Amino acid sequence: MGLDTVKAKPHDRLAAMLSDEMAAVNALIRERMASKHAPRIPEVTAHLVEAGGKRLRPMLTLAAANICGYDGPYHVHLAATVEFIHTATLLHDDVVDESAQRRGRPTANLLWDNKSSVLVGDYLFARSFQLMTEPGNLRVLEILSNAAATIAEGEVLQLTAAQDLSTDEDIYLQVVRGKTAALFSAATEVGGVIAGSDPAQVQALFDYGDALGIAFQIADDLLDYMGDSSATGKNVGDDFRERKLTLPVIKAVAAADEEERAFWQRTIEKGKQEEGDLEHALKLLNKHGALEATREDALGWSEKAKASMAQLPQSELRDVMIELADFVVARLY
Amino acid sequence: MGLDTVKAKPHDRLAAMLSDEMAAVNALIRERMASKHAPRIPEVTAHLVEAGGKRLRPMLTLAAANICGYDGPYHVHLAATVEFIHTATLLHDDVVDESAQRRGRPTANLLWDNKSSVLVGDYLFARSFQLMTEPGNLRVLEILSNAAATIAEGEVLQLTAAQDLSTDEDIYLQVVRGKTAALFSAATEVGGVIAGSDPAQVQALFDYGDALGIAFQIADDLLDYMGDSSATGKNVGDDFRERKLTLPVIKAVAAADEEERAFWQRTIEKGKQEEGDLEHALKLLNKHGALEATREDALGWSEKAKASMAQLPQSELRDVMIELADFVVARLY
Repeated sequence: MGLDTVKAKPHDRLAAMLSDEMAAVNALIRERMASKHAPRIPEVTAHLVEAGGKRLRPMLTLAAANICGYDGPYHVHLAATVEFIHTATLLHDDVVDESAQRRGRPTANLLWDNKSSVLVGDYLFARSFQLMTEPGNLRVLEILSNAAATIAEGEVLQLTAAQDLSTDEDIYLQVVRGKTAALFSAATEVGGVIAGSDPAQVQALFDYGDALGIAFQIADDLLDYMGDSSATGKNVGDDFRERKLTLPVIKAVAAADEEERAFWQRTIEKGKQEEGDLEHALKLLNKHGALEATREDALGWSEKAKASMAQLPQSELRDVMIELADFVVARLY
Repeated sequence: MGLDTVKAKPHDRLAAMLSDEMAAVNALIRERMASKHAPRIPEVTAHLVEAGGKRLRPMLTLAAANICGYDGPYHVHLAATVEFIHTATLLHDDVVDESAQRRGRPTANLLWDNKSSVLVGDYLFARSFQLMTEPGNLRVLEILSNAAATIAEGEVLQLTAAQDLSTDEDIYLQVVRGKTAALFSAATEVGGVIAGSDPAQVQALFDYGDALGIAFQIADDLLDYMGDSSATGKNVGDDFRERKLTLPVIKAVAAADEEERAFWQRTIEKGKQEEGDLEHALKLLNKHGALEATREDALGWSEKAKASMAQLPQSELRDVMIELADFVVARLY
């Protein structure tokens, strides 16, 4: 394969194809993240905005609307709304997880304090609701407010399920839908709704976002045991140290003998971790093929996302979104 | 005056006059506070719901709608929305303030943890936005999402202004509008809007809620230095110990000589408090007439609320709302 056939990454191609509209989204985000009265707000939000992030979710909204032939202005508002909800949940997640790093930079809760993260997150939530009312489309409001509720519910469920060895793959999936897939599926669905697409196309867009989000999160949880911190901005084994019961461990626990079960109880349920425990955990994950099985699950969801998107009319944007579904699991090869 | 002319407290009379509609509001609150998936959510919300509270805000919405002749069902949704926003902000406030007591009971962050308070608060915010979309009235969505943004902005402003002796009465008022008056004024305004009232009446309802909220918060800040904990559920001097620059202290700082200024700098700005400091603070507040001047401000806002409400058509509900504006400052006599 010659150099000329090497393609850019799909989210970079999306960014290039949507650059004018993303410029409008970024301008709107900067405008609405400001605060006339409270100087702490722009400090915290500028820190987040500068940290970058791929802006994948707003691009999904723009792309979905374009694929469905939308030519109005409001997909920009909805894209900004989706990014605001995402940013607000990041701020609150970092408080809940007591994180010190996000996107390779110190988190807001570390630079300022938990109070600022909680309240600036609330401000961004409120701003997102102001933004989403502007298109004057009630169905869009339903979808986005339902997504916000599912996100919070999933986070609370994770709080109680995370260190409970009886958590099974169904509960894991529910948590993942809440923490990741709900906003992906809302992002794509509202793009179709604002374009006035027919119900089958809107459903296909929802299904794409749902499956893409699940594939993305499973891949993320797998990379936590595989990846290196330079690629992910996270340290290998963070989830283990934070006693998070993610899919690889759920699979290993399901296959565990008595001694292994005692190990998971001590390290995850009781949180009594010692030197060498991460290495032993990795050994058990490999012994039961848990990492490989998790990878297969991620690939399956990626295939489902591609099949859903294939139901939409052919266009270059559609094809890049199909490639994106491959890309989120390409990190796992 | 005979016993038969002794009237019940205005919020109790409102509760009696609106009992059927409040029963519908309470049923809706119970229904929507539940969670199918995350058992922690009903645990935390039940704790809050059982703690009671006067449900003043939802009653204001119901009363405003009734005064304007509304006979549809949606004021119930809006009243529940307002209570959800209020409850969500209480959960987050208790995290931010590191409170141990609310309404005379241990706070949720103490019984569970800060994580649960943050995430269940987010859940209630999301639920409030689901609820407020149901009447299908876009103006109502604007008002309530604007109020949510003003609340968060006011809380962040308070965070940075609270321990800064240069905070003046204008900034204090901005904080109070954010933390209290914005939800009161939204509560009354949406009642008028859903009833389809004319702009002058809607404005009068907004002004009533705004002034009532400000009078209420000033009275609360004053009672922190006057009241006893059995009446307020708070300990006298809590705000002083938490280094909150409320109106009484702002007035005393403005009148302070050099030595007194050093005292406020040490106790509020630097937070180096010693035995006997609260007593000395009270002495300074009295010396400069700061408590009396604060009381006059509260009474002035109460009068403004009454004058605004007097612009609405006469009815028994209207007159009880006028009495309510007297009542919130009656604690100060």
